[in-house]
Amino acid sequence: MSPPEDATLLDELQAVLDREIPVCAALGIKVCLGHGQPGLRMAMPLERNRNHQRTAFAGSLSTLCTIAGWGATWLELRRLEALGHPAGAAIVIRRGTIKYHEPVTAAEIVARCLPTEAAFRSHFAEMLAEKGQSKLDVLVEIVGSTAERPAVVHKGSYVVLPNADAPAG
Amino acid sequence: MSPPEDATLLDELQAVLDREIPVCAALGIKVCLGHGQPGLRMAMPLERNRNHQRTAFAGSLSTLCTIAGWGATWLELRRLEALGHPAGAAIVIRRGTIKYHEPVTAAEIVARCLPTEAAFRSHFAEMLAEKGQSKLDVLVEIVGSTAERPAVVHKGSYVVLPNADAPAG
Repeated sequence: MSPPEDATLLDELQAVLDREIPVCAALGIKVCLGHGQPGLRMAMPLERNRNHQRTAFAGSLSTLCTIAGWGATWLELRRLEALGHPAGAAIVIRRGTIKYHEPVTAAEIVARCLPTEAAFRSHFAEMLAEKGQSKLDVLVEIVGSTAERPAVVHKGSYVVLPNADAPAG
Repeated sequence: MSPPEDATLLDELQAVLDREIPVCAALGIKVCLGHGQPGLRMAMPLERNRNHQRTAFAGSLSTLCTIAGWGATWLELRRLEALGHPAGAAIVIRRGTIKYHEPVTAAEIVARCLPTEAAFRSHFAEMLAEKGQSKLDVLVEIVGSTAERPAVVHKGSYVVLPNADAPAG
């Protein structure tokens, strides 16, 4: 993927969140532009996402991970569309599992999607081409106080459906 | 538990959410008072929690379930304090698993905590008395379009810690 295309897609993703999902704006969720590392990143401020302990509220962390994984699936789909796959599919999350390892205290809370292995991306594209729907598991981490272990780990299973059937999100 | 005590506790829980966790106000999360059925209920409006499909945003559903389970644990702890257990413990969620079965389209989105079995509540109280910390698993359902199956099911594991150690929430 070329950097200019990526930057345009990230801008477009931010516009989708701002326009279509008011909670993302309410929580201050922003797509991180130009971080130069593999894997989508999104961030939000601690202040409006704090809890009674003045650390990050678990519900906000779960929301950030959920939308980051959705965004990673959206980017993958847009890249496939650019390669000629049919456009207009809808992405819905089917299940999520989250583990909270330590409290999050950073003023800016950052979630990073782990890059999906090439074999899984190929499988995702093949299923989409053959059946018109597909599934992608996305791992998202919230950066913690040390580099060794993330504060939070989320695994989401995202299903891509033909748009007419699109239910949740 | 007597109804008057319950109503007071529910009012107090609403005040905690309003005062301490700004995201609950941003999403319009309300403790349901006087519904007369076992199990804590919380609700939020679809409008400000919608997604690009105009159904409920998965991040909001996850947040509602997370805080409802936290609230159920908070209520259990307050009841134990009223029975003489030491006060001042903090509740943090350790992990959560959520399944999205169908899109949520109701104008008012309702989450209900399934009542915890007496044996688990006893175990929770015993561990708290013996070790000063304990754990409660809470199942929360988002009401769906039919009575047969909930739209969303969330299982959260909530840990009660002595307040000095309290990290997340």
